[in-house]
Amino acid sequence: MYCFNNDYSEGAHPRIMEAMIEASLDQHAGYSMDTHTEHAKELIKEEIRRDDVDIHIIVGGTQTNMITISAALRPHQAVIAAETGHINVHETGSIESTGHKVLTQPAPDGKLTPELIQKTLDWHTDEHMVQPKMVYISNTTEIGTQYTLAELEALSRYCRQHDLYLFLDGARLGVALTSSINDLSLADIARLTDVFYIGGTKNGALFGEALVITHPDLKPDFRFMIKQKGAMLAKGFLLGIQFEELFQNHLFYEMASHANEMAMILKKAFVECGFAFFSDSATNQQFPILPNDLIEKLRENYQFQNQQAVDADHTAVRFVTSWATKEEAVRQFVEDLKKLV
Amino acid sequence: MYCFNNDYSEGAHPRIMEAMIEASLDQHAGYSMDTHTEHAKELIKEEIRRDDVDIHIIVGGTQTNMITISAALRPHQAVIAAETGHINVHETGSIESTGHKVLTQPAPDGKLTPELIQKTLDWHTDEHMVQPKMVYISNTTEIGTQYTLAELEALSRYCRQHDLYLFLDGARLGVALTSSINDLSLADIARLTDVFYIGGTKNGALFGEALVITHPDLKPDFRFMIKQKGAMLAKGFLLGIQFEELFQNHLFYEMASHANEMAMILKKAFVECGFAFFSDSATNQQFPILPNDLIEKLRENYQFQNQQAVDADHTAVRFVTSWATKEEAVRQFVEDLKKLV
Amino acid sequence: MYCFNNDYSEGAHPRIMEAMIEASLDQHAGYSMDTHTEHAKELIKEEIRRDDVDIHIIVGGTQTNMITISAALRPHQAVIAAETGHINVHETGSIESTGHKVLTQPAPDGKLTPELIQKTLDWHTDEHMVQPKMVYISNTTEIGTQYTLAELEALSRYCRQHDLYLFLDGARLGVALTSSINDLSLADIARLTDVFYIGGTKNGALFGEALVITHPDLKPDFRFMIKQKGAMLAKGFLLGIQFEELFQNHLFYEMASHANEMAMILKKAFVECGFAFFSDSATNQQFPILPNDLIEKLRENYQFQNQQAVDADHTAVRFVTSWATKEEAVRQFVEDLKKLV
Amino acid sequence: MYCFNNDYSEGAHPRIMEAMIEASLDQHAGYSMDTHTEHAKELIKEEIRRDDVDIHIIVGGTQTNMITISAALRPHQAVIAAETGHINVHETGSIESTGHKVLTQPAPDGKLTPELIQKTLDWHTDEHMVQPKMVYISNTTEIGTQYTLAELEALSRYCRQHDLYLFLDGARLGVALTSSINDLSLADIARLTDVFYIGGTKNGALFGEALVITHPDLKPDFRFMIKQKGAMLAKGFLLGIQFEELFQNHLFYEMASHANEMAMILKKAFVECGFAFFSDSATNQQFPILPNDLIEKLRENYQFQNQQAVDADHTAVRFVTSWATKEEAVRQFVEDLKKLV
Repeated sequence: MYCFNNDYSEGAHPRIMEAMIEASLDQHAGYSMDTHTEHAKELIKEEIRRDDVDIHIIVGGTQTNMITISAALRPHQAVIAAETGHINVHETGSIESTGHKVLTQPAPDGKLTPELIQKTLDWHTDEHMVQPKMVYISNTTEIGTQYTLAELEALSRYCRQHDLYLFLDGARLGVALTSSINDLSLADIARLTDVFYIGGTKNGALFGEALVITHPDLKPDFRFMIKQKGAMLAKGFLLGIQFEELFQNHLFYEMASHANEMAMILKKAFVECGFAFFSDSATNQQFPILPNDLIEKLRENYQFQNQQAVDADHTAVRFVTSWATKEEAVRQFVEDLKKLV
Repeated sequence: MYCFNNDYSEGAHPRIMEAMIEASLDQHAGYSMDTHTEHAKELIKEEIRRDDVDIHIIVGGTQTNMITISAALRPHQAVIAAETGHINVHETGSIESTGHKVLTQPAPDGKLTPELIQKTLDWHTDEHMVQPKMVYISNTTEIGTQYTLAELEALSRYCRQHDLYLFLDGARLGVALTSSINDLSLADIARLTDVFYIGGTKNGALFGEALVITHPDLKPDFRFMIKQKGAMLAKGFLLGIQFEELFQNHLFYEMASHANEMAMILKKAFVECGFAFFSDSATNQQFPILPNDLIEKLRENYQFQNQQAVDADHTAVRFVTSWATKEEAVRQFVEDLKKLV
Repeated sequence: MYCFNNDYSEGAHPRIMEAMIEASLDQHAGYSMDTHTEHAKELIKEEIRRDDVDIHIIVGGTQTNMITISAALRPHQAVIAAETGHINVHETGSIESTGHKVLTQPAPDGKLTPELIQKTLDWHTDEHMVQPKMVYISNTTEIGTQYTLAELEALSRYCRQHDLYLFLDGARLGVALTSSINDLSLADIARLTDVFYIGGTKNGALFGEALVITHPDLKPDFRFMIKQKGAMLAKGFLLGIQFEELFQNHLFYEMASHANEMAMILKKAFVECGFAFFSDSATNQQFPILPNDLIEKLRENYQFQNQQAVDADHTAVRFVTSWATKEEAVRQFVEDLKKLV
Repeated sequence: MYCFNNDYSEGAHPRIMEAMIEASLDQHAGYSMDTHTEHAKELIKEEIRRDDVDIHIIVGGTQTNMITISAALRPHQAVIAAETGHINVHETGSIESTGHKVLTQPAPDGKLTPELIQKTLDWHTDEHMVQPKMVYISNTTEIGTQYTLAELEALSRYCRQHDLYLFLDGARLGVALTSSINDLSLADIARLTDVFYIGGTKNGALFGEALVITHPDLKPDFRFMIKQKGAMLAKGFLLGIQFEELFQNHLFYEMASHANEMAMILKKAFVECGFAFFSDSATNQQFPILPNDLIEKLRENYQFQNQQAVDADHTAVRFVTSWATKEEAVRQFVEDLKKLV
């Protein structure tokens, strides 16, 4: 049984595990005030070619979203997201638990646009309604799609014109930046957003999301917010060590590229078999629409999740690859698939 | 420079690190639904000799306090803590951020008693005030003291009579259970409290607190609360693996015992030098009251924190030992201390 | 200039004002513990023919929604509402400010059905999403429509089967119960919902909504919640006095009937002029779709609000009548309208 | 039976009731956008001789405290109050329900000083603790004491030096400003605080607290906050009408003076009988310490509350007078008292 359920089934890349072992018996300062974290931040600053940013490495993604959004908004302010956005659907009301409404717009390809945001602004006109103040996007999105430079520039321009913070959830930023259709760099993202994060959990770290704050209004007292939300790791040096490895010797990009390559092998096979897709993804999540009886047979040897029923006989399913996906397992899957169709 | 600042300066015990490496390339179910976590829970259930409990392993202590308290209370209800309680002082208002007041009583030795709790109940009589509903204690306390079986039985009886949940923060439960004056077992704690946790972070794990819920009212939907507060670790198997090691071959007790032994060497030295203590601790935190000039000299080679000024010339300071504290460093410290006094 | 903007432009019915004056110099117990409030509750209990309910009279509607919903839900639970529901749109995120998500379904006529609720339940299946626990409906709805006995029975049955609380916002319950198409009584509503309220503000009181709790789980400690949310009026006897008047001599029904009669005169006129309606309302809110140039001319002498643009040349507008609407003003409006079309 | 329980037993002054009746059948704009409210704000601005302030009239005191504090603070920030402060004790955790900790200092006479506040600042030094950002005081205090101009100037200077907002709860500001020992004006209070309110509920209005915001940072979007907390009264003109009456013809001061005069008759009698006092109050709350058997006899004809047991045989009790207290009732009480001692 091989598992294509997600990109967090395995632990961490061996280089990361070795670095952790090596530093395990040293004495470190607590709460991310250690030298490894300091170094990791320097590496990230070099990568985005900016020194005027605040960086905080936080254990998980939902946590990072909750802290960032609740730190940015006053009580009556709301965040705008695509209807499929992670904060709207899969975080158990975490944002609302901090007091804020998530305003949504249907976005068929998972991406927000100025036009969609404008629809929300249009009817939020007075104090009887919440006040939209932040836009939340993900790259890649929940359905594997990604923003182009032109799209992100348009969003950025719009948000600055309308006094909205732009926040990019980069839990899967690695696979976005290394896909064949990408034209964005980390430096572009730092320039065009007000705050974003670089995901480690889904790209070969045990855990860890590196939040980069570029907008000066969002910086003050951020460590208070991390602590209050229970997210200040006592042994914060673990986060630093992992991001040192990710941003030394290009490991971050190397692992994401591998995940994408494995996904492209799957994609090619599904295309060759004539299957359509739920979304057009160039990254590590693939959503082929398969006949239900084929799905049943594939599940004898492979794990993968249902995305959504398409009709009585077909279901969109999700295959996820990662830094750790074994090429032989993928090749075997393709062979098995072709036998079955 | 040797650091006695805290018990979370180092990583994890080598047996734990090895187990993590070994499992790192396996595929695991996400979100703590994996077999390692299942096994760790079984080991803990055996340890407390109870099968009718719910166990959740959570990354950090503040997080665990926040989730447990906010899951247990209705909006108008409050938790009672000693004035020195961690939730009252050192969690950046985490409990209040979930909407609940922390009611406090001064407790000179860091421990709550039925008498102290009764004082709070006495003046919370109607709907113009919050309603006390939970009692929060720590074992060991913030100042290294610990509850006896008789004390915990008295608290438990009182809380049940007064319809109060009893919650024990066991971030430092290891050193409490292995101190020379302890007469409590994990089974006693499970029997006498409604919910408690077994700390890993401060006892040789990279992170992780195992929350044990015994009261049936506190069990339903707990995983929703974990997720909402951003505390559901994607690679939850990391928590399971660590607690497997802690509760196999007595590693949990072995490490705590070592921490206590190292602390007793320090304590003996301070006593021999004639110093008084801020609190009477048989565990890994020692709070000698030292002359300020001695403190200054000791700081040339050792790190430790100030607890509180006692008079113009003396300060209570805090020395913390851990599973990783090196005996030669402690012996060297004692030698240096005796030279200086 | 006559105002059809809303049903809270005027103060209170003269009988209510007189009763308030009369009692103004008496000494009353504070915080709704007075004899007038006691009497008002008795009158309401007689009206719903139930004695096993808790009643709390609260100043405003948003307040009542916020208190009731936040008192009923655990932190991870959510309330389901029509997309047009007042709590979703016009309360500035009040529900979210207490930590809860509002889950919505588009409901073209403003009414929820078991089928619509089922859609929400269908995809809220695990702890990564909020847990739906309450259904919020309004009678009349935001667009003047109303539930029939059969519809409310179906909703009630469904909610009980699915362990969902059913909460009816009755800010405009008076006009619903007195409309020509109504087949519900207050007793039916008490029988079929778990909690509901009887609106005073929009039916001839200065302010006040009488919340009736029938479900035993929703009763405990409710006064704590009222106080915490800043809603416990010091001179609570003012609420009692007003509801005494409303439920003596049928004043509540009498005023609502008047509002509906005035609305029917308007409706008839719009129909006679050949205009369509945005919703099919038998109550005090009428939403004719008018040509924009007619709207402009009518606004020279009348105030009324825009509801929604329908096409480039037509807009749905809202006319609201009340207990205080003067028949001569309505007749004059009809005359003016007919002259203009 | 005459009631000295509080200053909100009666309705409103006849001039206020008449004004409300007179305007009751007029059509008014909703939500405090009406002309009466506009006029009331103008009158208050004249009174404080400032035009650069924002004024919002809100129904109740707990509500006003909750809105003002939660609008001013970021999530990790806290408000400092005297241990006896209303927000700490008698508001059912309302401030905490919005996410903020109330930091307290014991203040024997109910008043905060720079020295007391400094104690709190001294140990709130890093992100592991909440960040004090606002100081909450009441004038008069909970125990009838009041601030002098010198005291308020010292507090104001200190707060500005330490970047703390100063918020004055004026639920009983009328009796403070009219007491024999007062040297403060409304203009002084506007100059020395960042936000304060003028209480109507406890000074002859049916309800209503006029919040005056002087600090520019506290002004933006305040109406959103009022609405979100359920405090935007539909018939807001009721608040405007009442404050028009309060600040026309000095009714506000006239009523407060009467309350104080009645209290001074009581005070004189207690002094003449040789009783000590729990606090030294020149205002409408008097706290004599009486023998328990005398208390029992007085309660045959008079209502008043216990404040606190002083010893086995004596209790401090609270007598409250108001604008409506009848001089003959007070004279009768004095006569009865003197007979009994």
